[in-house]
Amino acid sequence: MNFIRDLSTSISEKKSVVCMGLDPRLENENQIPEYLKEQYQNSNEIILEFNKHLIDNTYDLIPIIKPQIAFYEKYDALDALKETINYAHKKDLLVLLDSKRNDIGSTSKAYAEAQFDLYKADACTINAYLGKDCIKPFLEYKKKGKFILVKTSNPSSKDFQDLFSIQLDYISNQTTEISVEEISKSLVLKRNYIHIANLVHQWGENLEQYRGYHNLGVVVGATYPEEMKLIRKIVKNSILLIPGYGAQGATAKDIKFGFDKKGLGAIINSSRGIMFAYTKNKKYSPEKFAEAARAEIIDMRDKINKFILK
Amino acid sequence: MNFIRDLSTSISEKKSVVCMGLDPRLENENQIPEYLKEQYQNSNEIILEFNKHLIDNTYDLIPIIKPQIAFYEKYDALDALKETINYAHKKDLLVLLDSKRNDIGSTSKAYAEAQFDLYKADACTINAYLGKDCIKPFLEYKKKGKFILVKTSNPSSKDFQDLFSIQLDYISNQTTEISVEEISKSLVLKRNYIHIANLVHQWGENLEQYRGYHNLGVVVGATYPEEMKLIRKIVKNSILLIPGYGAQGATAKDIKFGFDKKGLGAIINSSRGIMFAYTKNKKYSPEKFAEAARAEIIDMRDKINKFILK
Repeated sequence: MNFIRDLSTSISEKKSVVCMGLDPRLENENQIPEYLKEQYQNSNEIILEFNKHLIDNTYDLIPIIKPQIAFYEKYDALDALKETINYAHKKDLLVLLDSKRNDIGSTSKAYAEAQFDLYKADACTINAYLGKDCIKPFLEYKKKGKFILVKTSNPSSKDFQDLFSIQLDYISNQTTEISVEEISKSLVLKRNYIHIANLVHQWGENLEQYRGYHNLGVVVGATYPEEMKLIRKIVKNSILLIPGYGAQGATAKDIKFGFDKKGLGAIINSSRGIMFAYTKNKKYSPEKFAEAARAEIIDMRDKINKFILK
Repeated sequence: MNFIRDLSTSISEKKSVVCMGLDPRLENENQIPEYLKEQYQNSNEIILEFNKHLIDNTYDLIPIIKPQIAFYEKYDALDALKETINYAHKKDLLVLLDSKRNDIGSTSKAYAEAQFDLYKADACTINAYLGKDCIKPFLEYKKKGKFILVKTSNPSSKDFQDLFSIQLDYISNQTTEISVEEISKSLVLKRNYIHIANLVHQWGENLEQYRGYHNLGVVVGATYPEEMKLIRKIVKNSILLIPGYGAQGATAKDIKFGFDKKGLGAIINSSRGIMFAYTKNKKYSPEKFAEAARAEIIDMRDKINKFILK
């Protein structure tokens, strides 16, 4: 497999850039239907059954799924995660494991091995706060997809990602403050998320490309369309993973800047909006949750394609 | 339990700020002895036996252990992690789970639940790139310890953490570049890691304190003593988790800035240096790995105490 090649091919064949998030929840408002919780013995069985049913009813409509590992970890259901990934592969789906891992060199290597060798994900998300040596072990899996967090979809992403910053290589490491007067007038400050995008662009410069894209992508929330437009220009050869559609409030027009003229360049994720579509539409009983998910994906796909395919 | 109270008490009783990292490795140079690998059937058993033996031989010398979850994940040995934590608690050790998790709100909540409710860690590490809403679900566990990554011990931490940045609230979100001329002369730029330290200081302002410290700590690599001195002044009421001692090259004098006059304020972690001490000292056969670890901890404790206790 080669993530970027397989993803591009599947997007073209299925005419869909929809990514189904699989974030199982066993309590609160949006959750796995009661009848499944009664039918099975433990969280692994309940979640696996729920996921398989969703996959069976949607695999022809989507190129990729995105399980969020936090929920499998929380419910002690990592076996269900592994079996879901295996099941998805049998249905010709790619799997992007949303784990946002990162650590220093040798630990980062252990994380990369867990994501790709143990869980057998085709791609994963990564946090780059620790710099290049934390990304390297992931990059060594050349054929796997890697998505670096650039601008996340949550409101507090402004706290840190939106700070203006500057690289001043001539200043010693021990200097932590610098007066603006010392800085040449010709220099400009860029927001932190732009710096991360620039780093991703650098790290991806020599990677093999397929139809203009390589295996080092970025994460940009659909909730920030203007920022997306700017990021798109910097990471010209990166696939964007765009979360925030649906439950977080973004719509089809917010994501159009992620795509090129051929309708490639991004995948759009919706998790709760798809998985728990049955709770929003009275037409569907809890037993029909997968049919509701299918209808939601069709609606989402068509709305998005209107903007990206001409 | 209350992490900060229990940690302070244990540090005073044991006269030790040493944290034993438990990052099991089953291959390469530094690794769990062959004889254990032959004796047990699977990675869960091998790792648990190794950890229990280490704990049995060291629990009177250390207040806390720090398992790095990446290695348990990689070897599909999360059961060994859970049992190690349970075993450590029985020996009156605190457990800091090094997981560096983070995500947006509802997913972050799932991670917090996994770290504290499922694994039953007393504290964990967190990445703050996503801003306050990713920290909040962790803060809701008031009695648990939380350690935010500020300046990590790896060489590439400079890539992003050392950028100079500035918060300019009067600039609209859509502005991504700003000329230096527009910035008032009175403003100063601070490095990104200083901004994160400032955020931690803000987030911790109203937290309950015990002997001058609260449950929101920070991570600062021992490999960056000058930066540590500056961070210490900003997060006056945070415990520092200081990794990088031993295998990564830092020594006792590099960490003295982390402590107050009573010898409180930080814990010093060594993982490979302690766990695999038997590989560096011919006095110890592989069967004596736990004795070698004990000797290493005594040496480390005494060297550190010379700098911090007068």
